[in-house]
Amino acid sequence: MSCQPSVSISPMICQTFIVHDRGDGAHRRQDGRRRQVSRAAELIERKRNGEELSDEEISELVLGYTRGDVPDYQMAAWCMAVYFKGLNGRETHALTDAMVRSGETVDLGAALGRRVVDKHSTGGVGDKTSLAVGPIVAACGVPFGKMSGRGLGHTGGTLDKLESIPGFRVELSKDEFVAQVRDIGLAIIGQTGDLVPADKKLYALRDVTATVDIVPLIASSIMSKKLAGGADAIVLDVKVGDGAFMKTLEDARILAEQMVDLGKRAGREVVCLLTDMDQPLGHAVGNALEVREVLATLRGHGPEDFTELVLDACARLLALSDLDISVDEGRRRSQRAIADGSALASYERWIRAQGGDPDVAALPAAPVVREVTAPHRGVVTRLGALDVGLAALELGAGRRTKDGAVDHAVGVVCHAKRGQKVAKKHVLADVHARDEKSAAAAAERVLAAYEFGVEPPRAHGILLDVVP
Amino acid sequence: MSCQPSVSISPMICQTFIVHDRGDGAHRRQDGRRRQVSRAAELIERKRNGEELSDEEISELVLGYTRGDVPDYQMAAWCMAVYFKGLNGRETHALTDAMVRSGETVDLGAALGRRVVDKHSTGGVGDKTSLAVGPIVAACGVPFGKMSGRGLGHTGGTLDKLESIPGFRVELSKDEFVAQVRDIGLAIIGQTGDLVPADKKLYALRDVTATVDIVPLIASSIMSKKLAGGADAIVLDVKVGDGAFMKTLEDARILAEQMVDLGKRAGREVVCLLTDMDQPLGHAVGNALEVREVLATLRGHGPEDFTELVLDACARLLALSDLDISVDEGRRRSQRAIADGSALASYERWIRAQGGDPDVAALPAAPVVREVTAPHRGVVTRLGALDVGLAALELGAGRRTKDGAVDHAVGVVCHAKRGQKVAKKHVLADVHARDEKSAAAAAERVLAAYEFGVEPPRAHGILLDVVP
Repeated sequence: MSCQPSVSISPMICQTFIVHDRGDGAHRRQDGRRRQVSRAAELIERKRNGEELSDEEISELVLGYTRGDVPDYQMAAWCMAVYFKGLNGRETHALTDAMVRSGETVDLGAALGRRVVDKHSTGGVGDKTSLAVGPIVAACGVPFGKMSGRGLGHTGGTLDKLESIPGFRVELSKDEFVAQVRDIGLAIIGQTGDLVPADKKLYALRDVTATVDIVPLIASSIMSKKLAGGADAIVLDVKVGDGAFMKTLEDARILAEQMVDLGKRAGREVVCLLTDMDQPLGHAVGNALEVREVLATLRGHGPEDFTELVLDACARLLALSDLDISVDEGRRRSQRAIADGSALASYERWIRAQGGDPDVAALPAAPVVREVTAPHRGVVTRLGALDVGLAALELGAGRRTKDGAVDHAVGVVCHAKRGQKVAKKHVLADVHARDEKSAAAAAERVLAAYEFGVEPPRAHGILLDVVP
Repeated sequence: MSCQPSVSISPMICQTFIVHDRGDGAHRRQDGRRRQVSRAAELIERKRNGEELSDEEISELVLGYTRGDVPDYQMAAWCMAVYFKGLNGRETHALTDAMVRSGETVDLGAALGRRVVDKHSTGGVGDKTSLAVGPIVAACGVPFGKMSGRGLGHTGGTLDKLESIPGFRVELSKDEFVAQVRDIGLAIIGQTGDLVPADKKLYALRDVTATVDIVPLIASSIMSKKLAGGADAIVLDVKVGDGAFMKTLEDARILAEQMVDLGKRAGREVVCLLTDMDQPLGHAVGNALEVREVLATLRGHGPEDFTELVLDACARLLALSDLDISVDEGRRRSQRAIADGSALASYERWIRAQGGDPDVAALPAAPVVREVTAPHRGVVTRLGALDVGLAALELGAGRRTKDGAVDHAVGVVCHAKRGQKVAKKHVLADVHARDEKSAAAAAERVLAAYEFGVEPPRAHGILLDVVP
């Protein structure tokens, strides 16, 4: 009798046999590996059958995977089982905790003797929020230290936006990072490889095994990095809509609730803003173009929706800080920091500290700028964030592959946004391109992102909800 | 913006980006691989979402996997998605067909100019059916050529049983195999590695990713090997019960129906016998012990249930052959082949052709034989096949690990079976062991496999059902 499907014993029994197997000295190492593989198979099967796994079991799986003892194929099968059977709150916490323990952690609070706050966005088209929030919060006297990841996408990530500033260094050592937050109150750097290596490995696997869109895995991926980064209080910006990972407010709320719960279980305060990503955030989409928009916003001339979001995020961060103030007071102080120039000064100090030139004139500019004009009069009823993002990607503003290069100068500036009345030939957007050919293609795509009507759409602010 | 879960584009979009990516010459090879990985991810996602895959898509996945272009982790995720979403009949056929095309095939029928029949069992405790069926069918003038796999299990597989015969060679070349079937009408050999390599690879993966017990995958695994083996008509013996992979008649029927359907789609005739595996088949469990029982059966003194099953299988095989006779006539001829000694002569010719000594005295015998006796009078109401199988495994009759050695001499002979009345101290079974210690442990386990009552259990034959 054999254990092939063509035979008569269940796989669990085979596995038990393997576990009980006792090799001689020479085989002991191989046996250890075999035992781990068989143990992992048992955990996959139990999750597949809808059972709960204990904290220890989840930790075993995640740390074994990080060490390379649990192979990719077992983790992939486990993730797919989780897609169908889910993880409860305790299991998601155990997963997050194991991911944090898979690598180094930073304790900014202890190093500074202050309550440190952090801000993270699930990302969207034209999302440059952190670049404005950091200087404002720091100007209000609250230390802000943030590590950002880099990834694939339409437009660059936070690090790409910062790297469009000539001379700016995103790679600081842990010690430099802590020192800069202590000395000037602000640093944003690339996430070090030693932080949450389990997430790095697991995400790469999920990306190619159709196991990305699993809420508890998304929540633990985000939160493990925030927890390892050491902030005491975290404001999360969960984007909702066409240009976001979460397409509906309902889905976004589920993700937000799980992340708030993970924060609570880890002894941190977490507030989630659910914000609109049906159209691009602000006007600018593309690295240097977005940095220009951040500078305009810090000078008080930012786009309405973007300014609103920045102030919301700053108000929440200040309210969670050791300033011991209300959200309303946080908002007033943030507005004041913009009005009195202290936020801009904080920005300039920060950029210089990381080797960059804060002057707007130093930013790269694209050689070709092409206008996109309205084909007829009407009201903008829709401006598809995803389409604008894809146009920016095709211009070269984002990465198609992990090792791809980013063109910092190119992108799209959408002057007309949802609800705006336009006359025929009104300039809707500018495309900033490397050449005429790519400009023409992007212009076509951007125009297709616009829809027009007679009646203005129902207006709503950028902030859709707050959890909890 | 990045494609990490912390950002705002769906994994499908990322994959599209990767697919569209055009590298320069140096990167072309890497790009091809990347495209394949991204294509496989799409197929995983579509199955995960409950969509049907086309024949071409399934073929792409299976052949890509066999070539090593689709990595283990993607196939593992796909199998887990299949666990939850299933495969329909057309998809299962496409999978089976791709598996057959992954390697060499044998066309015995064409080589012999005869309609060739094959027989396969899903395996059970004490299942030595092929060893008796082959000689009987051959004695009736129908060529019988069978390739067997080797696997983990309680007791050895068909190959291990044959290898308990001194000198017997299971490794014949394809040409030797065909020649022997032509010359003496009978050969049973080890499956060559070139036959259905996809199944070999896929089964090893499923074994460690909790994706073994998926009916369409089991059906395609079994049927791909039978189809590649080239038989025109196949009798399958699907075991049902405690000692079998399929625990209930209902599950066994579903598997049987899928296999019959796969046969039909491939233009072969398939009949499935659903047979009882709640207790061991026949009396003997253990390699040489089972060969002894086969010899007794070919002499007309076999256990009732085993003889019944052998005759059922032979009758069906002969009815499917080019003899053009009924099942009843097949049974009569099979009985005659036993009665007139032609089946035994066929057995001896076959064993000699493959280098073995057919004399029963040549078989290895265990040094220790220990009786298991009834603790009190009563009727045997249950004899657990799984427990007896485990006892045999512990004696050394089976393999705990893929490379483990098998002790051909050891095993268990269960004289008393379900329904038998026994007095106190009546010998229930003999344990054949390498030493006293293992004999004592096995005896205890075998005794525990017996349950006794006052009333005999409801009697039924070995054959539970036939599909179709």
